[in-house]
Amino acid sequence: MKYTFSNKLANMKPSAIREIFKSLSDPSIISFAAGNPSPLSFPTKELSEIAADIFENESAAALQYSVTEGYSPLISDVNRRMKEKFGIDGEGNQTIITSGGQQAIELACKALCNEGDAVICENPTFIGALNAFRSNGAKTVGVTLGDYGIDTTELEETIKRTENAKLLYVIPTFQNPAGSTSTLDNRKRLYEIALKNDLIIFEDNPYGELRFEGEEIPTIKSFDTERIVIYCSSFSKILSAGMRIGYVRGPSEIIQKMVIAKQVEDVHTNIFFQMMCHRYLNEYDLDAHIEEIRALYRKKCTLMLECLDKYMPREIKYTRPSGGLFIWCTLPEKINSSEFVNLALKNKVAVVPGATFNADESAPSQSFRLNYSTPSDDDIVRGVKILGDTAHELLK
Amino acid sequence: MKYTFSNKLANMKPSAIREIFKSLSDPSIISFAAGNPSPLSFPTKELSEIAADIFENESAAALQYSVTEGYSPLISDVNRRMKEKFGIDGEGNQTIITSGGQQAIELACKALCNEGDAVICENPTFIGALNAFRSNGAKTVGVTLGDYGIDTTELEETIKRTENAKLLYVIPTFQNPAGSTSTLDNRKRLYEIALKNDLIIFEDNPYGELRFEGEEIPTIKSFDTERIVIYCSSFSKILSAGMRIGYVRGPSEIIQKMVIAKQVEDVHTNIFFQMMCHRYLNEYDLDAHIEEIRALYRKKCTLMLECLDKYMPREIKYTRPSGGLFIWCTLPEKINSSEFVNLALKNKVAVVPGATFNADESAPSQSFRLNYSTPSDDDIVRGVKILGDTAHELLK
Repeated sequence: MKYTFSNKLANMKPSAIREIFKSLSDPSIISFAAGNPSPLSFPTKELSEIAADIFENESAAALQYSVTEGYSPLISDVNRRMKEKFGIDGEGNQTIITSGGQQAIELACKALCNEGDAVICENPTFIGALNAFRSNGAKTVGVTLGDYGIDTTELEETIKRTENAKLLYVIPTFQNPAGSTSTLDNRKRLYEIALKNDLIIFEDNPYGELRFEGEEIPTIKSFDTERIVIYCSSFSKILSAGMRIGYVRGPSEIIQKMVIAKQVEDVHTNIFFQMMCHRYLNEYDLDAHIEEIRALYRKKCTLMLECLDKYMPREIKYTRPSGGLFIWCTLPEKINSSEFVNLALKNKVAVVPGATFNADESAPSQSFRLNYSTPSDDDIVRGVKILGDTAHELLK
Repeated sequence: MKYTFSNKLANMKPSAIREIFKSLSDPSIISFAAGNPSPLSFPTKELSEIAADIFENESAAALQYSVTEGYSPLISDVNRRMKEKFGIDGEGNQTIITSGGQQAIELACKALCNEGDAVICENPTFIGALNAFRSNGAKTVGVTLGDYGIDTTELEETIKRTENAKLLYVIPTFQNPAGSTSTLDNRKRLYEIALKNDLIIFEDNPYGELRFEGEEIPTIKSFDTERIVIYCSSFSKILSAGMRIGYVRGPSEIIQKMVIAKQVEDVHTNIFFQMMCHRYLNEYDLDAHIEEIRALYRKKCTLMLECLDKYMPREIKYTRPSGGLFIWCTLPEKINSSEFVNLALKNKVAVVPGATFNADESAPSQSFRLNYSTPSDDDIVRGVKILGDTAHELLK
């Protein structure tokens, strides 16, 4: 039989990142390509203690079917934390637990967008979000992301010329891949524009807890008086990525549609680990744990920046992030960026080419993404030196 | 803002089962409405031992991001088991791990169906599958399910008059909700019809391990020489439902599209519990464990049938299942089935009305579903007696 696929999936290919990841099975390659948190950020001993206790005292509930919305004690915990840390509160909103932040993005698009509808997003942006939109048949339309946030003039123009734009997807804090954080003014202007144009904002904040420098900037959701913001975060960067536990809060009408969509995707998120999160948040000091992660990433980011300063030719520009997992490097026009990425891989250092993160997949990019949370300190020094040598070679 | 939803989700409501479940928070109600496995079927002590060891020796991998396809040692395990127990093998197929069988159903529909395409299924059938198809904008078209399987004459007629039928969804063994098992002849005829009409078969087999009487019947996938069958099962009924681990095997071209769709739904399934399953399958005796579950369900099913024989008026017919979790009861025309279900609930016994499981939600049904895996023996006796009294009352 000749298989025929749905229009929305027929042309989707595995992401370029996946292909790069395959090359990483070679242990001689230094990888700056991952988006993984450091294994040191997972509180193994504490989670192990909690797991033993759950098996001892709550195993019947922890192994049985549960409700789609999520474990209600954990929902209370994340509501409390969103309020305390990110100023998120307000009536007419509802919070549910999702199988990672990834699921929340996909569910929001499924609930709001028909095939052919548009999602407007920062350019560059998170590849997992772009593909979630595409898998629902939505068009992805990019707006330039600058140092201070999305270009709001371009955003207004883009909205004007885009038919059926439904959703505006942004990562305002420690953006993936660009590492930038948008200013409060930018966030407020973006909110006004979305409100005026009947756009729902999806504020993705997976790295919000990972600030190691500077002052917190209010989340967009914190001033969402008009209930147009869906806010999402997860425990992937602070407790465990592999357990797949995230959460999303938004207007209850929208969240209730997402619950219906979630029920048919996986019934509910692994309940054992939902209970683990709840216990950790109540019996251990999450803030102290996060301080350790921040110190670790501050150190690793500083080291990588020092190496970039030392080894990279001046013509290469890079961001100086105040949190998150990524540094975004931009090559001068005289270097062909594909050539750079390929030569770096040949020289045993993997980075992710910037074009991967474009809303328009065919658009070129002079940039590439570096991750500092996963590699060892030694690998950071050796790998950045190799990248510097590679750049020097191509500048000759 | 007035929220506008996608066409596919705009008209979807939480399922009737969910509404019934809400009434179950009343502890005085005896519930035959659940589809939960018995908590006794979860090997808590063994899982607890494995978890402790994973935290001790493999925690870095167990808590970190993993690959979308699933944990490869577990994939080898399920391939081996599918071959040994269900005769499933054959080249050109691929197996992946999913977040419960539910996710496999949803991914298959997303990969194969555009909005407006049709999925043909048994009438009645699993509500979670029906809603998964609806959430992707597919139409659900039912074909009568008899004691020996789907009505193949009606199936051929239905295919002829249905535009854009893409998928044929069946639960041939211990069907949910009807409890029936289709014969080998019926399975072979169904396969021929699907092949002739370019339909992909989705064979859902969540209860296949739970036979407590009679002889195994070959799965459809076991004679799928033409690669038109997607086969799905899970660990929900034999290790833990709450961990959400299932698996799906099918033509590799289709599975690869499902991988792309899965990646944007949840990146991957909880990796810690995937490792738990692998360890259990290799270090403990799953077959012996399953024998215990079968013995338990044989006992509970027999008890429920004895009570039905004793308390139900003769006019009420019911199946005598040889495995699975459900008995399907059918009321005579002179009893209004909604009235029966409502009066039973008023009398403190919850059952699921048959109309819930119809492909056409508005079609009436004289049937209701009883579950025997969850209630205690005492509740089975007391509850069935109440149902008998309720039926007698309405027959007056």
